[in-house]
Amino acid sequence: MLDAAEQRALRRALEIAADPAVPLGPNPRVGCVILTSEGELLAEGHHRGAGTAHAEADALARAAGPHGAGPLGAGAAALRGATAVVTLEPCAHVGRTGPCTDALIEAGIGRVVIARRDPNPLATGGIQRLREAGIDVETDVETDVPAELAAAAEQLNRGWEHGLEHGRPLVTAKLALTLDGRAAAADGTSQWITGPAAREEVHLLRTICDTVLVGTGTARTDHPTLTARRPDGALHPRQPLRAVMGTGAAPSLPVLEGAGEEIRLRTRDPSAALAELFSRGGRHVLLEGGPTLAAAFLRAGLVDELIVHLAPTLLGAGRPAVEDLAIDTLTQRMDLELLDVAPLPSPGGRTDLRLTLRPRASPPGPVPSPSATSLPVSLDSSGARA
Amino acid sequence: MLDAAEQRALRRALEIAADPAVPLGPNPRVGCVILTSEGELLAEGHHRGAGTAHAEADALARAAGPHGAGPLGAGAAALRGATAVVTLEPCAHVGRTGPCTDALIEAGIGRVVIARRDPNPLATGGIQRLREAGIDVETDVETDVPAELAAAAEQLNRGWEHGLEHGRPLVTAKLALTLDGRAAAADGTSQWITGPAAREEVHLLRTICDTVLVGTGTARTDHPTLTARRPDGALHPRQPLRAVMGTGAAPSLPVLEGAGEEIRLRTRDPSAALAELFSRGGRHVLLEGGPTLAAAFLRAGLVDELIVHLAPTLLGAGRPAVEDLAIDTLTQRMDLELLDVAPLPSPGGRTDLRLTLRPRASPPGPVPSPSATSLPVSLDSSGARA
Repeated sequence: MLDAAEQRALRRALEIAADPAVPLGPNPRVGCVILTSEGELLAEGHHRGAGTAHAEADALARAAGPHGAGPLGAGAAALRGATAVVTLEPCAHVGRTGPCTDALIEAGIGRVVIARRDPNPLATGGIQRLREAGIDVETDVETDVPAELAAAAEQLNRGWEHGLEHGRPLVTAKLALTLDGRAAAADGTSQWITGPAAREEVHLLRTICDTVLVGTGTARTDHPTLTARRPDGALHPRQPLRAVMGTGAAPSLPVLEGAGEEIRLRTRDPSAALAELFSRGGRHVLLEGGPTLAAAFLRAGLVDELIVHLAPTLLGAGRPAVEDLAIDTLTQRMDLELLDVAPLPSPGGRTDLRLTLRPRASPPGPVPSPSATSLPVSLDSSGARA
Repeated sequence: MLDAAEQRALRRALEIAADPAVPLGPNPRVGCVILTSEGELLAEGHHRGAGTAHAEADALARAAGPHGAGPLGAGAAALRGATAVVTLEPCAHVGRTGPCTDALIEAGIGRVVIARRDPNPLATGGIQRLREAGIDVETDVETDVPAELAAAAEQLNRGWEHGLEHGRPLVTAKLALTLDGRAAAADGTSQWITGPAAREEVHLLRTICDTVLVGTGTARTDHPTLTARRPDGALHPRQPLRAVMGTGAAPSLPVLEGAGEEIRLRTRDPSAALAELFSRGGRHVLLEGGPTLAAAFLRAGLVDELIVHLAPTLLGAGRPAVEDLAIDTLTQRMDLELLDVAPLPSPGGRTDLRLTLRPRASPPGPVPSPSATSLPVSLDSSGARA
């Protein structure tokens, strides 16, 4: 069980781990907060990207007094019997830095609280090593902490964890469509199907994914900047890689100071595109359109999550939001699991809906007793997803 | 203010008014519960259709003792100073029966609680007449009672009230569609896009509307029975009029014992069809398809409410759920106001969504401060709407 001080420490560790100055991609984001055995804050630290200190080492250094750099330097003696609250299982391998487990053991830490286990086969073993050294290790904290804290821990390194498990980036497809499934009107106009709240959420999604991917058609038609901007137009501190995929001609994306790098993937094969993005460190790809690209990834079974912004409006004609899925008859339908529904109210009285869905791997099995409350319909429209 | 006994009485009055044995259509449904001044039940009554006693007269007769027919006969003396709780403003005109206001006054009723005012210019004036007779009249109870009670009072005679105000039936369009706006797959298969819970709700809708309307295309393709059935296949006690509209050829609907009467409207003009249905006593029409009929009514501005059953599934091709709306460009979009969202979970893990929407008469005006909680996302999926 986590006590109240440890829960607060975990919240803070997740917060500093998510520092927007830290790049996304092939390294996990990790935070560490060290408490005295009385629950007083000793030090905090986080990982700042490949080649920099791990979160535990960062926190230990800041806590260790004269040799530590941090303002909270409390001397090495204070660490004896202290508690380290970490967002990810401490590593047990020697990489560019020494194993964090050894550093914790040597510092005399008495207890370690771990939010997520490390799925990386190279790094795992940390829990066992800590326990062998006599340290009290608390894991599987999901049930001990508020749901939003468990969700934040899960979201923090979703793409990185997915990459370790599947060898390709996590793929989130974003669709903006009308109630009758249109992504554009008959004359091709599509700006804007959804209201300001939904569009602002897209910019937040771009800060959570490390890569934004569009097809050449969208690049030609929409000239999208694919930057993550605040409502006032200012750039978010973190900008995604901007990838354009396809064999057709397409102009370069608009050149903008501070925008993410642009790359061109000259393939129509979603697997090949994802392999290329993965090799460049991409771990979470946001598919932003258009309908042809979305259909290609759906057909290939390479969409892990759909975020649908549904505008309560009808067009009666125009480009469908999803193109041919090679489905001829109803039994071949592509069923999705509806995970969440939330309204996105905009000034002026427009309210779009955000639906979060996941393709079903296979026909749904029997569910014990489906109840109306089994679907989390969230009224929180703050938009932040991480 | 209503006291607790009066709130209970109103709940009961709404319940008996909605007796499924009472026909829908051109007469309002009304319930009346009479309480002693101590809040004890004296009698209850309801209207049973054209030519029968009004609810107040029914309740008074049951309460009035030897001459009353009811089991609760308590003698005329008990009515002195009693409270009558009625779902609709008592009438002040002489129709096939004498005015209810006079009957209440003569009986010596001391207080009358009225859930809804009578929008009928011929019947109105009841409140004034009661007050002139020295009776304490409580109106505009919406804010005094639980929201679901106020909603039930509003739902009870929605079609009837709409008819008085607009001179045509209320029109509810029901659409069943996929996330990408399809009503059928490429080969025309459409049974079933939605799960059992959504389909059961359609049967409940058919018991609330007095008329079900389909186009000749749907009659030809689907051979729909258009009956209101329970999940076990048994017919609901109330069955809608079954109307088929269009100038094309169409077979008769399936002949079924207990089903509603079938009529054919040989027109493609929604206004003409509604005028004909109104003259036959129709006050609430459920448009059940297909896409051509829905589009015709939407184009004509003759849809008052949309109930959309959205299946979380993709088809990528197939018949759109709404056909041509004569919209060429995005600015001509047909915006709808999203009133409610609710999940419809079915056994087997399928969850459809029910969206309730209303066409916007004009572009939305400025809204003071739209908040996330302004949209009632209801988790109640009981399906009952009245």
